[in-house]
Amino acid sequence: MLTAVERKIEQFIIDLDDKEVSALYAKLPHGKRLRAKLILSIAGTSLLVVKTAAIVEMIHAASLLHDDVIDDADTRRAKPSLNALYGNKTAIMLGDILYSKGLFELTNISTDVASIISHAVMQLSLGELKDVSLSKSFNSNKSIYLAMIYQKTASLMEASAGAAALLSGKDKVAYMTYGRNLGMAFQMIDDLLDITTDSQTLGKPALHDFEEGKTTLPYIYLYEAMDSVEQQKLQSLHGKALNSEEQAWIKEMMYDKAVIQRAFDEAKVLVEEAITLMNARGESALSGIAMAMIEREF
Amino acid sequence: MLTAVERKIEQFIIDLDDKEVSALYAKLPHGKRLRAKLILSIAGTSLLVVKTAAIVEMIHAASLLHDDVIDDADTRRAKPSLNALYGNKTAIMLGDILYSKGLFELTNISTDVASIISHAVMQLSLGELKDVSLSKSFNSNKSIYLAMIYQKTASLMEASAGAAALLSGKDKVAYMTYGRNLGMAFQMIDDLLDITTDSQTLGKPALHDFEEGKTTLPYIYLYEAMDSVEQQKLQSLHGKALNSEEQAWIKEMMYDKAVIQRAFDEAKVLVEEAITLMNARGESALSGIAMAMIEREF
Repeated sequence: MLTAVERKIEQFIIDLDDKEVSALYAKLPHGKRLRAKLILSIAGTSLLVVKTAAIVEMIHAASLLHDDVIDDADTRRAKPSLNALYGNKTAIMLGDILYSKGLFELTNISTDVASIISHAVMQLSLGELKDVSLSKSFNSNKSIYLAMIYQKTASLMEASAGAAALLSGKDKVAYMTYGRNLGMAFQMIDDLLDITTDSQTLGKPALHDFEEGKTTLPYIYLYEAMDSVEQQKLQSLHGKALNSEEQAWIKEMMYDKAVIQRAFDEAKVLVEEAITLMNARGESALSGIAMAMIEREF
Repeated sequence: MLTAVERKIEQFIIDLDDKEVSALYAKLPHGKRLRAKLILSIAGTSLLVVKTAAIVEMIHAASLLHDDVIDDADTRRAKPSLNALYGNKTAIMLGDILYSKGLFELTNISTDVASIISHAVMQLSLGELKDVSLSKSFNSNKSIYLAMIYQKTASLMEASAGAAALLSGKDKVAYMTYGRNLGMAFQMIDDLLDITTDSQTLGKPALHDFEEGKTTLPYIYLYEAMDSVEQQKLQSLHGKALNSEEQAWIKEMMYDKAVIQRAFDEAKVLVEEAITLMNARGESALSGIAMAMIEREF
């Protein structure tokens, strides 16, 4: 059923009537289309639903294009990123085009759907700035971190589920909670993978987040659990290239203090809440999507 | 009456509830607010109109932020550009925030207004890409140039006038023609100033467009009027830093072939058409705005 979404995105691209845009879009990896899957699983496959899913995926692709420029990322899904291939400027411009086409097409859906999705786009652009700002110093404040990942990652999943609920006359609040919890858990687990996966599988250096200055949940928990000497050492390693000894020390401390498990458990609580909400509504496909998230290898 | 628009933009920024965004926004020059002026002159100063004008100016500011990154511009309105002060990444992120806040707020105006403005944002992002692509080789095709400046510059003025007409129950087609003609003429005259103004007044090097690879209308006309030896020489100078001799040769040729006047006359025809349309409707303020455009020093 995702094929209909792919075809709709292609149609939106063709609408733009610009050969260069078509050629560039063809170079982008499609990804998992998780947001589209959520939308279709909630709201079925009517034309309006497929359009909404296609719009959300275009917006998500736009955000990744800008994200990769901001993060100086050379790869995306283990392939060279568009900015690596064609330069930052092209990535910025294609991002703007996908954003604006998506937001324009929203006006053909409904005011409610346009409002909920465009509000999330605003949140995610604020989240991007906050992510960068936070990485400039060692952030040990958990609620600031959670607020940031809500804006950066969860807001668009929350809005996707909310839009799908609106389109299918389902309970908006419950589905938005489901989408938000899934989004938060998704980001938490993604952050864990940066620590637990070896660099070859990940397609980027291990502990890359911390080297970039990002103190994700395990680092915040680790900092809390450390004595002041250890804290000082951890802080001294923040935001710089780590040698293998330093990497080993961080990982060892994390296993010592069991912070990986603690962060994973926190993600799991969110996912379980999401599953309970969906089970109560007989939404087994949606429970399954949530379940799969905590069953990712890590 | 523009004060109400400034206050509304400030309110939109405060809504975002992010100190960093507020601090960055405070660093942006306000510019002439030409699009807001158009909107208020057409539709009055009701809250909805002021909001629409504020949204359009936020969107315009966002496009300039990205534009300056794309063009490697160090200055904007004779001051250091935001990308020069805080880096490209900050300029990209603030641009995304202003775009998305603007497009979100549009959903609170009306579907018609949201559709017309977001369609223009799409056009201008396509125009930006086309501008960059065209500058990679010597473009001597006038209609391609005109289509690009329509997308890049005229589309948002056209949409601003169209949105204002919708909000005030005036004739959408006439006002959109007015806005489009004004936008086309504005860009043509801006392109002329790059040739006729000395670099000190301009705040950037003279013939900067041509050095950047941009063949604006006078270059296209010049190319048409040249013999093949001259054409070859002109092409050989395209897209590179020019010494004073080469600059002098280009300017001399332009005065010889009277292409500055020819391009200005073309802008003037568009402005006169706009004035005629507005005079027929007793819109003297709008005629005045158009008149002022061709009376700029050049």
